[in-house]
Amino acid sequence: MKIIRTIQEMKQHASKLKKQGQAIGFVPTMGYLHEGHQQLMSKARQENDILIVSIFVNPLQFGPNEDFERYPRDEQRDIKTAEYNQVDVLFIPEKADMYPSPRSISLHVLRRSNVLCGRSREGHFEGVVTVLSKLFNITLPDKVYFGMKDAQQVAVVDALINDLNYPIEIIPVSTVRELDGLAKSSRNVYLSDQERDEANNIYKALQFGLKLVVDGEKNPDNIVQEVKDFILSNTHGKIDYVELLSYPELTPITSINEQVILATAVHFERARLIDNVVFNGQGSVSERI
Amino acid sequence: MKIIRTIQEMKQHASKLKKQGQAIGFVPTMGYLHEGHQQLMSKARQENDILIVSIFVNPLQFGPNEDFERYPRDEQRDIKTAEYNQVDVLFIPEKADMYPSPRSISLHVLRRSNVLCGRSREGHFEGVVTVLSKLFNITLPDKVYFGMKDAQQVAVVDALINDLNYPIEIIPVSTVRELDGLAKSSRNVYLSDQERDEANNIYKALQFGLKLVVDGEKNPDNIVQEVKDFILSNTHGKIDYVELLSYPELTPITSINEQVILATAVHFERARLIDNVVFNGQGSVSERI
Repeated sequence: MKIIRTIQEMKQHASKLKKQGQAIGFVPTMGYLHEGHQQLMSKARQENDILIVSIFVNPLQFGPNEDFERYPRDEQRDIKTAEYNQVDVLFIPEKADMYPSPRSISLHVLRRSNVLCGRSREGHFEGVVTVLSKLFNITLPDKVYFGMKDAQQVAVVDALINDLNYPIEIIPVSTVRELDGLAKSSRNVYLSDQERDEANNIYKALQFGLKLVVDGEKNPDNIVQEVKDFILSNTHGKIDYVELLSYPELTPITSINEQVILATAVHFERARLIDNVVFNGQGSVSERI
Repeated sequence: MKIIRTIQEMKQHASKLKKQGQAIGFVPTMGYLHEGHQQLMSKARQENDILIVSIFVNPLQFGPNEDFERYPRDEQRDIKTAEYNQVDVLFIPEKADMYPSPRSISLHVLRRSNVLCGRSREGHFEGVVTVLSKLFNITLPDKVYFGMKDAQQVAVVDALINDLNYPIEIIPVSTVRELDGLAKSSRNVYLSDQERDEANNIYKALQFGLKLVVDGEKNPDNIVQEVKDFILSNTHGKIDYVELLSYPELTPITSINEQVILATAVHFERARLIDNVVFNGQGSVSERI
């Protein structure tokens, strides 16, 4: 496995690979790799000649009161994980190389952003699309892989690729879960023992909401309220949001006909956890984009 | 010469060329091709395996009171001109294909934009960087060619490429002029006979300003004032601006030491003409970026 730490070297290497006609799969990450990431790498490994993984904790996508400084980092472990997952190139750029000041160009997200996590994380998706525009141009992927755990991110990246005509296919990958259903996340390490015991109720709440649809409930407001009640009854978490929207457009709906997302974010003492399910009007789970 | 009219076909073709290891030169234009464009094509033809030229009158870079509707168009003549200049692929996309609504992502230009033409053309450079981001992703060029007549555009595109790490080299090409010095432009057709006779004084005014520097004048304000006086004395045009700034940063200067640009825009009855010279502290003309 090749470890590359400068943009210039990564660009040269990617350009060489493209000229050789190699199909490049790319998994952008903020490191602290867990099974969710390994799922992305595994799928990308199968579908491409070359697998590039990036590790970059992107300051631009953290708000001023968010956890950029204390976001978990463990480069040595990440390198071993990447090697174990047959990564060809691990790209670990420096902040100063990625964001030499001053910036002249900024990207803004006009749709799909001001709901769910985007509502309470101002500037978050601006940071996401900015760093991804850069990483796409640096690594020149044919396919990029994102976890459906952050389904809004998948929707926004889909919009970025379509709007700016990137020659890239986005591959959404199903959320990887613990045995009790809790979605894997780098932030789960921040949960207390009691919070960890309760946290599986987030996924249970979403499954409960989905069951209401399967059983014939079509009113989004009723479903959202039932899911909120479930979370409040079964955890000490504070609900940031529970929303039911069209997917991937992320617009409000009055009835469940097309593909929708039921998503939630819950604050615990030191961690904010997110999860979602995507399904159609009959309640069949599907993750088309 | 291949004429391609859909984004999808252009992307497939460009991707195939890249896999073959072909070096792609790209000349984006708004059509109505003149000798200025031919200069760009000629240079791109020499320096690359494949020459792609696009024709797209980009609505996003025209202000509400600008000349989008009556911008000159002559596709049949442009096709002949492209053929004559040994273009390999002429890409002529449709507006509806380039901008399917609604847009989800917008690009903003934070620096280099709020001076010169950017000051009076709000949103112009946003439109330029948006369409170029798209065209770059569609045509996958190794090198892109821009005329120095729009030196601010060269500076902004340079910022776009650097900030978003496009794997592209920008090649600035010297302004092509009529025998009397008037910079070639698609908009020159709008000049009356009398205006056309006077219009060469725009370039003469810039040369006059440059001579002041060669003769030892270092004060930007004095030079700007002398150039304004020259234009007002020798044309019936209305000055939009005369500015002397660092280049390509386009920041104000108090003395002429590093590379600078002396630029002007002059309104005539039905046409707004721009021109500039770029030179260093000794008054030597140079167009590094």
